[in-house]
Amino acid sequence: MRNDGRLNDQLRDIRVVKDYIRYPQGSVLIEYGETKVICNATISEGVPPFLKGTGTGWLTSEYSMLPCSTHTRNQRESQKGKLTGRTQEISRLIGRSLRSAIDLSLIGERTITIDCDVIQADGGTRTASITGGFLALYIACQKLSEDLKIGNPIKSFVAAVSLGIVNGEIMLDLNYEEDSNAEADINLIANEKSEIIEIQGTSEKGTFDKDMLNKMIDLGLNGINQLIDIQKRVLNLK
Amino acid sequence: MRNDGRLNDQLRDIRVVKDYIRYPQGSVLIEYGETKVICNATISEGVPPFLKGTGTGWLTSEYSMLPCSTHTRNQRESQKGKLTGRTQEISRLIGRSLRSAIDLSLIGERTITIDCDVIQADGGTRTASITGGFLALYIACQKLSEDLKIGNPIKSFVAAVSLGIVNGEIMLDLNYEEDSNAEADINLIANEKSEIIEIQGTSEKGTFDKDMLNKMIDLGLNGINQLIDIQKRVLNLK
Amino acid sequence: MRNDGRLNDQLRDIRVVKDYIRYPQGSVLIEYGETKVICNATISEGVPPFLKGTGTGWLTSEYSMLPCSTHTRNQRESQKGKLTGRTQEISRLIGRSLRSAIDLSLIGERTITIDCDVIQADGGTRTASITGGFLALYIACQKLSEDLKIGNPIKSFVAAVSLGIVNGEIMLDLNYEEDSNAEADINLIANEKSEIIEIQGTSEKGTFDKDMLNKMIDLGLNGINQLIDIQKRVLNLK
Amino acid sequence: MRNDGRLNDQLRDIRVVKDYIRYPQGSVLIEYGETKVICNATISEGVPPFLKGTGTGWLTSEYSMLPCSTHTRNQRESQKGKLTGRTQEISRLIGRSLRSAIDLSLIGERTITIDCDVIQADGGTRTASITGGFLALYIACQKLSEDLKIGNPIKSFVAAVSLGIVNGEIMLDLNYEEDSNAEADINLIANEKSEIIEIQGTSEKGTFDKDMLNKMIDLGLNGINQLIDIQKRVLNLK
Amino acid sequence: MRNDGRLNDQLRDIRVVKDYIRYPQGSVLIEYGETKVICNATISEGVPPFLKGTGTGWLTSEYSMLPCSTHTRNQRESQKGKLTGRTQEISRLIGRSLRSAIDLSLIGERTITIDCDVIQADGGTRTASITGGFLALYIACQKLSEDLKIGNPIKSFVAAVSLGIVNGEIMLDLNYEEDSNAEADINLIANEKSEIIEIQGTSEKGTFDKDMLNKMIDLGLNGINQLIDIQKRVLNLK
Amino acid sequence: MRNDGRLNDQLRDIRVVKDYIRYPQGSVLIEYGETKVICNATISEGVPPFLKGTGTGWLTSEYSMLPCSTHTRNQRESQKGKLTGRTQEISRLIGRSLRSAIDLSLIGERTITIDCDVIQADGGTRTASITGGFLALYIACQKLSEDLKIGNPIKSFVAAVSLGIVNGEIMLDLNYEEDSNAEADINLIANEKSEIIEIQGTSEKGTFDKDMLNKMIDLGLNGINQLIDIQKRVLNLK
Repeated sequence: MRNDGRLNDQLRDIRVVKDYIRYPQGSVLIEYGETKVICNATISEGVPPFLKGTGTGWLTSEYSMLPCSTHTRNQRESQKGKLTGRTQEISRLIGRSLRSAIDLSLIGERTITIDCDVIQADGGTRTASITGGFLALYIACQKLSEDLKIGNPIKSFVAAVSLGIVNGEIMLDLNYEEDSNAEADINLIANEKSEIIEIQGTSEKGTFDKDMLNKMIDLGLNGINQLIDIQKRVLNLK
Repeated sequence: MRNDGRLNDQLRDIRVVKDYIRYPQGSVLIEYGETKVICNATISEGVPPFLKGTGTGWLTSEYSMLPCSTHTRNQRESQKGKLTGRTQEISRLIGRSLRSAIDLSLIGERTITIDCDVIQADGGTRTASITGGFLALYIACQKLSEDLKIGNPIKSFVAAVSLGIVNGEIMLDLNYEEDSNAEADINLIANEKSEIIEIQGTSEKGTFDKDMLNKMIDLGLNGINQLIDIQKRVLNLK
Repeated sequence: MRNDGRLNDQLRDIRVVKDYIRYPQGSVLIEYGETKVICNATISEGVPPFLKGTGTGWLTSEYSMLPCSTHTRNQRESQKGKLTGRTQEISRLIGRSLRSAIDLSLIGERTITIDCDVIQADGGTRTASITGGFLALYIACQKLSEDLKIGNPIKSFVAAVSLGIVNGEIMLDLNYEEDSNAEADINLIANEKSEIIEIQGTSEKGTFDKDMLNKMIDLGLNGINQLIDIQKRVLNLK
Repeated sequence: MRNDGRLNDQLRDIRVVKDYIRYPQGSVLIEYGETKVICNATISEGVPPFLKGTGTGWLTSEYSMLPCSTHTRNQRESQKGKLTGRTQEISRLIGRSLRSAIDLSLIGERTITIDCDVIQADGGTRTASITGGFLALYIACQKLSEDLKIGNPIKSFVAAVSLGIVNGEIMLDLNYEEDSNAEADINLIANEKSEIIEIQGTSEKGTFDKDMLNKMIDLGLNGINQLIDIQKRVLNLK
Repeated sequence: MRNDGRLNDQLRDIRVVKDYIRYPQGSVLIEYGETKVICNATISEGVPPFLKGTGTGWLTSEYSMLPCSTHTRNQRESQKGKLTGRTQEISRLIGRSLRSAIDLSLIGERTITIDCDVIQADGGTRTASITGGFLALYIACQKLSEDLKIGNPIKSFVAAVSLGIVNGEIMLDLNYEEDSNAEADINLIANEKSEIIEIQGTSEKGTFDKDMLNKMIDLGLNGINQLIDIQKRVLNLK
Repeated sequence: MRNDGRLNDQLRDIRVVKDYIRYPQGSVLIEYGETKVICNATISEGVPPFLKGTGTGWLTSEYSMLPCSTHTRNQRESQKGKLTGRTQEISRLIGRSLRSAIDLSLIGERTITIDCDVIQADGGTRTASITGGFLALYIACQKLSEDLKIGNPIKSFVAAVSLGIVNGEIMLDLNYEEDSNAEADINLIANEKSEIIEIQGTSEKGTFDKDMLNKMIDLGLNGINQLIDIQKRVLNLK
């Protein structure tokens, strides 16, 4: 049994508060157990230079952790004057993952910004950000498609979950303690057809072979199915 | 009547969620109407260089707004690579105000950091930060005084409220729309004995004379009394 | 008697050298006792983005201290790569105060920059900067109104002075040693009609009540009257 | 046939100049076709704070591209004053990958820095950096083990290669043009026992399923075997 | 005749106000015609890391221009967040030049900082900074030698002057207008024995041959002799 | 005899690899003995603001050292977030020197950027950068003049060499060890007519008189003649 009583293939409790912040076009508070992330989607006019004149939109993401979201307080990146590599890496990952969910050619020269602000971290902040960021994106796109009288630009549901090998056992959706002890861990992002959008597997403490990788992928795709189910219920599509 | 139905001398609804984030020593979510701020107090060993060897502690504060907390999204200061003047000014104000509430010579060479992160802004974010920051500070000091077997270093309760002259009328606790239209506005910070700790009055659009200033102070001290009452109820001291 | 022989309600010697630097449109060296500040006003074409197309001008200010202006040398902010909170706070205060003195709608889309560079600091650098900055502004506006054949955009004279409670006594225009020992101190900015433009009162070491605040304001408005008198004599308006 | 005449499962020409720069402890110039990277390994005394007193060493990496290494000149990050997310992401990847190759507990409190400077880029700069960085690391560790009279701290050979799905076909070691047109691409890092150290798969333009992922892994592990063969020949171990 | 009525071999009026700022150990205001520079010398305990433990002191310099010192206002480097190349180049030049004037082994592990702040610029700011910086240094060293009961660490007097070829004629001590039109210009720093400490000659608009260079050096050494004479009179050594 | 067996008036072995990097318009690898610099010339559309609308082009340069190019590894300036004074000084020197070699009015509103990246440093990196940068510039200008059907904008060949006084002897083209021990050193940049474009002489450890300066210039102009000879052979003009 796991340190919080879960089975190896069991997600943590997933909770979502819809329309959490009032100003952005889409907003949710998502919780994966004790991990809590505010995900906001804002739509603004204009696109980055490389898209100007193409008629196509853009989606970008910014991830950040509040200083007290972690066990010991972290210095603010605004105080340091620069973003850490970890922050930039996760921001880029969220952006890439959610761009795969939307047909940006439908929204005109607009930029959707997905802000994921972690207010409490207990492992899996990037996967919660993607799953919650998708919800904020979906809500914003609903409003946009009504405003512009266009079809919904969302192409497919996208969710994310982590997996790891802890003491030789493959586990789904690691919490912080499990993550700290994992021999290897994977972040898996996939859509509702179980197509892989992104996979990032790392093994600083051990290694993993193709066989274990495949077992983790199977477990992960199963978890992602459950997460997409929850997403649909939050959006009253089920 | 005001734009949200309040009387001129009426506070907005004040709500507090105690122990909001699990890791810092003190944590609350405070709401002044639609203004919502997470206030966290963290205690760490060590003090800034100018206090080393004095046996005295320090208290500092950092204020920040999430990018989607405002009507239109704000760029992150971590992205810009520097803090705006407004952020630094408010951080310094919170720090000064709360240092007046505590006897830092009692806590040894420790630093208390008060993080105030605005997740939704509708006017009065700095006053909500001080009132909520005091609560986080109080909770952290309770734990510290138990841990160290010392008396509670809190000297007096401290709260803050804004006042303004809007269309010639003096109003308490302005929301964003009122604040945007104010001829003059004041931020008042005081303790439970109605002693003034800090007053900042500005009148970019008009001016105010000594008489109006005094009326605003009277109204403000009354509001602060109510806020301190709420603080005590949150802490189960009433 | 005070440490420099003054009475409690007495200003330090105020000296002004008009047309101190030759290139800016307005320039003075102002001294409040041993505090010496070069105040320059420059007019340039164009306004910040939020004013573009409005036909209205803007006024902004930048305050800085030379590294050797203080008792112990301070590191340059250009070396640190960022402005301190104190610098930004004072720059913003000077800007707000002087914007209240001018009708910016009369000057077209131009920006007036008030540079206040402290070359020697002995307390009251921000109040000297405002009083001297007003003079530089006035001189620059005289030239502008001649060049553009418009009325003088200056609406009212503005000056500033500090007050403090030192060993229980209320004193006007604190020098550095007094300021360091003050229980509370106030910076007061007002116009020639004794209307308050800005008040900033702080009491890190003590507190002050409404009654003492009013006594300080009375003393301060009196001092500001004297300062405005001096301003007018410098400008040969008296 | 591919745009440069290769078969789908064929590496580009791999060339290595050993001992390229004279000052660092290990140095190679590695070329994957037209991609050219200078890889240097420097050993210095001391470790980051989190390892002080543990007796264990550390390995870190810094990746950078010269401004003229790409088709159109890139602005220097030293000019911008900050590192891009891409640079930090790749630096972190190289560091993690090479830490898996070495037993850091054997080298004492020393830090090995692997600098990978791309002088010409034609796709695969991060995989060439890892394969070449391993060689620089190996050479530096040989010297270190001689100097310290300790066993060689290298645990296993590590190399890296990219894979992609281009027009529906799976290809090994993509050049820039192929990479720009890939539906999905993977960077695979593995050791000589075909154990996976890191896998990063992305599909911004398409998706890939588990089956295609496995085909890419098979092809990649085969390519890595060839690369490790080349590494051993360069080091005269074969 | 030159644009300000001088002969080709004539310095501008050189004026010095001794003991200009009260806090630093040495302070002068120096004027080369309309060029005005505040030069301050501060002595602090400690040396940079590369000198720790050697018993030897250090001298460094920082040069800066106030934003309104030039014909059109310059943006502050503290606002930009970085020093320009020109500022760093001149700071380094002043530092090198004045280090040649002092025996740093005599002052113990202390650092002398020469701050040169240009308040009005009309050509020759770097040469005025060196000549004035030497005076501030000399005064500070007098105090230091009295305090420490050591001999005066100054080895020789140092001064600096510019030269240029303007419309084919060689001129001494260029003002801004001359400097802007010069085909070539030289900054010459020398000591009282006419030994050259630094020479920097540039010719972006033309070139100069060895013969013209020698003529400029002769003229410059003559000017430096006059400047050293003035330095000695300011210090009451003549 | 010198530490590497050369005569006092002898250059180190000069080697050039033409067309070293494939993307920039001009590219060479130049070696002055063990000093190795990649010099690339890129031509881009557009000019800095001060030249817009003039029809004239611009040339700028950026110099940088790879972290492992020196005896002990240097921290990257991109990591520090700012350029050192030395880097900016050398970049500006290269830019000024090469601007003297070209008629920028012939190339239209284009900017030529000369990147000089030192991969191995053994003294004389700035002089090698200028000599090699000229070659990259020449090659780029050949292509430009063919593309635009204009005459070659190069006005004259430019090369650079260092000189120094080491143990009282004047030496040409110092290596690192000689440079570290020099009493004085000069960097000389001149054209094929032996006209001086820039001279920078420094003597932190000693001084030099006019006579020694002239001897160094003679020796240097002779060395520059040899370097220009080599440049012409590399370009097949001899």
